[in-house]
Amino acid sequence: MKHTHPDGRAGDTRGLGRSAGAPADQTTVRRSNLSLVLRHVSERGQCSRSTVAVETGLNKTTITSLVGELQARGLLKEIGPQHAGSVGRPSLALVLDGSRVGALGVEVNVDYIAAFATDLAGRVLVDRRIGVDAMGSDPARALDKLAQVIGRTVADLDQLGVALAGITVAVPGLIDTAGGTVVLAPNLGWHQVPVAERLRSAGISPNVPITVDNDANLAALAEYSSGVAMGTPNLVYLTGEVGVGCGIISGGRLLNGADGFAGEAGHVIVDPDGEECGCGRVGCWETKVGLAALVRMATPDDAYGVSPQVVRDPEERLAEIEQRRAEGDPRVEAAVTEVGRWLGRGAAMLVNLFNPRVIVLGGYFAQLADRIIPVAQAELERLGMTAAADRCSFAASNLGFGAASRGAVHVVIERVLSDPTTIAIRNT
Amino acid sequence: MKHTHPDGRAGDTRGLGRSAGAPADQTTVRRSNLSLVLRHVSERGQCSRSTVAVETGLNKTTITSLVGELQARGLLKEIGPQHAGSVGRPSLALVLDGSRVGALGVEVNVDYIAAFATDLAGRVLVDRRIGVDAMGSDPARALDKLAQVIGRTVADLDQLGVALAGITVAVPGLIDTAGGTVVLAPNLGWHQVPVAERLRSAGISPNVPITVDNDANLAALAEYSSGVAMGTPNLVYLTGEVGVGCGIISGGRLLNGADGFAGEAGHVIVDPDGEECGCGRVGCWETKVGLAALVRMATPDDAYGVSPQVVRDPEERLAEIEQRRAEGDPRVEAAVTEVGRWLGRGAAMLVNLFNPRVIVLGGYFAQLADRIIPVAQAELERLGMTAAADRCSFAASNLGFGAASRGAVHVVIERVLSDPTTIAIRNT
Repeated sequence: MKHTHPDGRAGDTRGLGRSAGAPADQTTVRRSNLSLVLRHVSERGQCSRSTVAVETGLNKTTITSLVGELQARGLLKEIGPQHAGSVGRPSLALVLDGSRVGALGVEVNVDYIAAFATDLAGRVLVDRRIGVDAMGSDPARALDKLAQVIGRTVADLDQLGVALAGITVAVPGLIDTAGGTVVLAPNLGWHQVPVAERLRSAGISPNVPITVDNDANLAALAEYSSGVAMGTPNLVYLTGEVGVGCGIISGGRLLNGADGFAGEAGHVIVDPDGEECGCGRVGCWETKVGLAALVRMATPDDAYGVSPQVVRDPEERLAEIEQRRAEGDPRVEAAVTEVGRWLGRGAAMLVNLFNPRVIVLGGYFAQLADRIIPVAQAELERLGMTAAADRCSFAASNLGFGAASRGAVHVVIERVLSDPTTIAIRNT
Repeated sequence: MKHTHPDGRAGDTRGLGRSAGAPADQTTVRRSNLSLVLRHVSERGQCSRSTVAVETGLNKTTITSLVGELQARGLLKEIGPQHAGSVGRPSLALVLDGSRVGALGVEVNVDYIAAFATDLAGRVLVDRRIGVDAMGSDPARALDKLAQVIGRTVADLDQLGVALAGITVAVPGLIDTAGGTVVLAPNLGWHQVPVAERLRSAGISPNVPITVDNDANLAALAEYSSGVAMGTPNLVYLTGEVGVGCGIISGGRLLNGADGFAGEAGHVIVDPDGEECGCGRVGCWETKVGLAALVRMATPDDAYGVSPQVVRDPEERLAEIEQRRAEGDPRVEAAVTEVGRWLGRGAAMLVNLFNPRVIVLGGYFAQLADRIIPVAQAELERLGMTAAADRCSFAASNLGFGAASRGAVHVVIERVLSDPTTIAIRNT
C-alpha cells in the first residue's frame, strides 16, 4: 500500500503555508523535518540515508538525528547491509516500520457498523462488519454499539502489541469536523450528536485522537489512494445508498469547503416539481437516484419505499428488485433506466463544476453499473459541457462496503506522516 | 500588496509534492530553497538573514548563498542597518525588491481589452482599458489588437527599465491552459484559437512566458488576494456579463479540475423547459442570470436581447435599463427580482457543493448588488443545505473591470515566487 497524500498537508512544511507574521520556532521546524523524512521514505520505499539527504536537501547530521528519533518512535527501521548504487559502499537502507502503530477507521451506516484497521505500512489487522439497525434506534443506543465495536477492536490491537495512532469515524451526514459532531445525518435520524465526546466518555483513551468525517468524503479518499481511480487527482465519488453520498478529490486533495460540508450533491435541487426529500425540501437529486427512488419507481404498488426512512434493509430491497427483474417485471428495467438518466443529469452538473476525469460509482450504483453507466454516460455527454464531458467517464468502485472505513484509516495514517511526534517514543 | 499563494504551489518544496520515485536533484533543491527564502521575505516583510535561517531551518551558509543569488536576480535587496531585536547587534534587513521585474495581466472581453502591470512588490506600472468590439470581429483581428496592446505595454515597461517576467491573458471561455489555446469562448465567437502561439508570432519575445486562463478563475484569484473577501480560503466568484463567469477558491487554492475547465456554472442546466443558450443546450443558468436574460426580461418588447450574440455594448444596455427603471417601468424591477431569485437558486447549488463562506459578485451583479443580494440570499437560505447556507453570504466586488487582469498579474508573480530562477541574473 503506497501512501499518497491527497489532502495536501504534505505542503505545510518548513513554515510554508503559514500566514505572514507567524514565524516557525525550532519545534515546528523539527516536526516538519521529521515529517519530510518519514514521508520521503514512505513514498519512495527503501532508500539510504545519503539518498534521503540528497533528495531532501537536509544535511547528514540532521538526517542522522531525525532518523534516530523516527526509529525511537517506531516509524522507521534499518535493513541491510546493501549497496547504495553500483559503485557505492555498503550501507543500511531505511524502510517504513510502523508495525506497532495502528490506524482504525470505523463506519456507521444505516444498517451496519464496519471497523477496519491497518498498521502504518498498510498491513490489514482488523476487518469486521456488524449488522446494526442504526436508523431504527435512538442515537444513544447506536453510539453505545459503536463504542462497543471500537472497544473490542482496540483490545484486539492491544493484544497484537499495536498502539493506536488514531480513530476516524465515518458517518453519512454533515459533520462539524472541528468538534467531532454530527450536525445532521437525516438517514440515521441524528441531529447534533457529539460523537467524539460520547466515545471519549465511553472510555476511549484520551491519548488516542478521534476524528469524525463524512462517509462519502472518506470513501473518495479511499478511491484516490487505492481504488479503481487510484492516483487520479480529479475525481468525483458518488455512492447510491438510501440517500446519495458524494466526495470530491480536486487537484489531488479532498474538497472540504469552509466547514467540511462540501460535496452535498444529493441535496442539490434538480426538479422543483418533484418528490419531497427527507431533508424537507422538494426535488433534491437524492429523490431521483437514491435507493428509495429506485424502490419507489420499481415497485410503485408497494406501500413502503416512499420516504427514505422506510427503506429498511437496503440490500434486501435491492435483492428483491433484482428478483423481480429476473421474473421479467418491466417496471424494474424502466426504473433502472430512469435512475441512470438522472444520474447522468446530475453528473453533467458535477462535470461542469469540477471537471473530473472519472466519476467513481459506489453503493448500489456499483452493483447495477453495467446497466446504469451506459445511460448515464449518454446523458452526461448530451448535457455537460462537451470539452469536459468527453474527457470524463464513469467507473464502478471495487472497494465495496469497505470504502469509507478504508479512507478513514488513510486519514489517520496521513496525520502520522504529517506529524510523527504524535507517536510516542517507546522504551524498548 | 501582500502576496498570498492561493494555488498552493508553495507546498511543492524540497521534494514534497513529487511522486514517489522521482528524486530531486541538486538543481531542484536549489530552486526550491530560492523559492522558500524569497516567499518567506515576501510574506513576512522586512527581516534579518538570521531570522530567515531560524524560520526556514536552512543553515546560514546556505542562506548567504541563496540571498546572494536572489540579489543578483534583482528579487531581494538589503536595507539597514538596524537591530534584529532588543538585544541583537545591528544587521542589515532583507526586503523584497523586484522593482525591475514586471508582471503583465491582459484581459480580452466582449467589448474591451484591459492591460494591468505591476512590479514584483505590487507597485502599479500600467493600467489601461481600450474599447474593442471583440465579439463583432473575427478572432484574427481581435488577436492583432491584443498583440498591439501588449506590444505597447511591453515597450512602456521597457522604458521604465522593467523586465517582463511573464504575461497572463484572461479570456471568457474554456481554456486549454497547457497549450495556451482558447477551446471555446462562445460570447467572443472563438473556437480553438491558439492565443499564445499567435502572440508569439506577432513578435512577443520567446523569453517571456505567456499563459492563458479563464477570466473568472483569474478574477477569483484577485478577489482572494486583494478583494472584498481577501484571504477567505473558500469563496465563489460569480460575474454577470453577457454570460456568467464563475471561479472557485477552495481550501485557499483555485479549483482547476483535470483540464482547467472547472467552475463552468453558467452552463449547468437549471430549467430544461427554458430558453435556448448560446452553447446550444436549453435552460443553462446563464439564460436566467446573464445580462442577456435581464435585458430580455426587462425589455420584452425589444427585438434584440433574445440571444447573447445581440447584446452589444453591455454597459450601454445596463444604463438603458437603469434609465427605464428611473422612469418607473415596473418590468425592470420585476426582471431584477427574477434574476436575484435565479441567482439564489444557482447559489444554493454552489453552496451545497463547495461550502464557501462568501459568494463575491462581479460584473453587472455588483452594479445591481443592493437590489439583487437580498432576493438571492433569501432564496439561498430557502433552497441550500441550512448548515452551509446560513454561514455563507453574498458580497459585491469592488475590483470593477480590473479583477481578471489583476488576477492575471497575480499568477505571474506567483510563478516568480515559486521559481526565482525564471528571472535572469543581471549585469549591473
